[in-house]
Amino acid sequence: MSITVVGTVAFDAIETPFGKVDRCIGGSATYFSVAASFFSPVNLVSVIGDDFTEQDASVFKGRNINLDGLQRIHGEKSFFWSGEYGFDLNVAKTRETQMNVLAQFQPRLNEQQRTADVLFLANAQPDLQFDVLKQCKRPRVVALDTMNYWITSARESLTRMFGEVDLIVINEAEVRQYTEEANVVKGARQILDLGATTLVIKRGEYGVLMVTKDAIFAAPAYPLENVFDPTGAGDTFAGGFLGYLASRREAHDKELRRAIVFGSVLASFTVEKFSLDRLREITLSDVLERYQDFRALTHFEDVDR
Amino acid sequence: MSITVVGTVAFDAIETPFGKVDRCIGGSATYFSVAASFFSPVNLVSVIGDDFTEQDASVFKGRNINLDGLQRIHGEKSFFWSGEYGFDLNVAKTRETQMNVLAQFQPRLNEQQRTADVLFLANAQPDLQFDVLKQCKRPRVVALDTMNYWITSARESLTRMFGEVDLIVINEAEVRQYTEEANVVKGARQILDLGATTLVIKRGEYGVLMVTKDAIFAAPAYPLENVFDPTGAGDTFAGGFLGYLASRREAHDKELRRAIVFGSVLASFTVEKFSLDRLREITLSDVLERYQDFRALTHFEDVDR
Repeated sequence: MSITVVGTVAFDAIETPFGKVDRCIGGSATYFSVAASFFSPVNLVSVIGDDFTEQDASVFKGRNINLDGLQRIHGEKSFFWSGEYGFDLNVAKTRETQMNVLAQFQPRLNEQQRTADVLFLANAQPDLQFDVLKQCKRPRVVALDTMNYWITSARESLTRMFGEVDLIVINEAEVRQYTEEANVVKGARQILDLGATTLVIKRGEYGVLMVTKDAIFAAPAYPLENVFDPTGAGDTFAGGFLGYLASRREAHDKELRRAIVFGSVLASFTVEKFSLDRLREITLSDVLERYQDFRALTHFEDVDR
Repeated sequence: MSITVVGTVAFDAIETPFGKVDRCIGGSATYFSVAASFFSPVNLVSVIGDDFTEQDASVFKGRNINLDGLQRIHGEKSFFWSGEYGFDLNVAKTRETQMNVLAQFQPRLNEQQRTADVLFLANAQPDLQFDVLKQCKRPRVVALDTMNYWITSARESLTRMFGEVDLIVINEAEVRQYTEEANVVKGARQILDLGATTLVIKRGEYGVLMVTKDAIFAAPAYPLENVFDPTGAGDTFAGGFLGYLASRREAHDKELRRAIVFGSVLASFTVEKFSLDRLREITLSDVLERYQDFRALTHFEDVDR
């Protein structure tokens, strides 16, 4: 079954303790689409400028990603983000953000995009997310991501969105910020009380905590010896997670847990190189192999009876 | 099989956002012993002052804890620690430390203590840990804990100890501090190169990462909605971990993983109330029940074939 993602396709400039790149492909919808396409067909809805070349677009080639929704605005440049990381790779420091084409982005979904089974609203102004959602014919699963900026600058709109979606993908710090509650499980319950069934809390190198009305699932991050660049890990996670879910008939607890692990697996590849470089190298069999590594990483036996 | 623990029995004064207590039982050997005694007999080696009453000693009563090694120094007061936590319960701020009896503590182990199968050297000056170790008839498993202070003030002594023990229980921040390596898995490998077979890295509310030569095991912390006071969580973890291990014939990967989970289970009870108040209420059946909750928390299925 298919997914529609609405988010950014961008150029990034990144500096980490391990290297530096002045211009590489990035953006939430880029990472999401490539990750999700390992499992399900994706409709990408985003916007680019004149500077986005055929060569740049090759990141989507040979994958099940429909680019009908990748709108080009002439006379403008693509969205640009520049950031750096210190030895603590958990926190990105933004050097510069150039909105460029994004300032005029008003997504209009076509029939195929509107009728997808799964809709992912990547981080964006919550009213824009709302507008996109209202264009859709009630998808089976609607998920959103957000960021700290909207919690302060568009709190009411974000709260409305929390009540409109099934599934919220959010950073741990954002749960604390939104709820002003130090205990993340209590904070999660407060957000779920607004209407969603599932909160997926990203904890960076500590993995993911999924909280639903009935259960909590904790998955560690894959412990890599070489984390090169964490940019895109969260969107890759969301892509693997929702891509896998879209490929299944049901989104019950058993499949949600597998989906969390697939999301974590895909994200663990993303951080091994700059941009989508590592994600572009791997195949589904690499993904399945690391899924087994995840099982070994977390497995422990029942007590002897 | 039996355990000997050498550490502190203390009085604590603690303030958390949820309450305040001016004098309660604490100390590494106290938490460790009570936790370990759920699984194995414990020889406690520590020191107290005149102020430690019969009433205080009741924390050890009715448990398999031998107090022959609990030395009383007359005319002195017990070790005292005072600390506070903010809403981020991960970091304790020390208000005051009174060494008192601890300044003169030179443990001399008797035959029963020296011949225990498992030896736990709780956080102490590494030369004192070395002295205790040399008194023992090579136990099956030797483990130590340490703290940031010794990494800077007694680095050489600590490095020698890292080469003398089988198992190191250490905070994630201490791995980074000792190795000056941002990546915790790389840091773990560096420490293991000094001689130990197993590094157990405590990550506070994010659980535990165990690194051995052959495998990595990640266990989350139990996600509690009410964490009241984190004091003693690390020593309780070590007690549950080594107490369980001592009860088993072998300390191979399968048992190490179960031991990590039992340690995490015990620690999750400790933080629910001040001091050992919660630990004193629970029975082995509560522990086994939460072990099952841990399985539910972390379980995910293999992919369909």
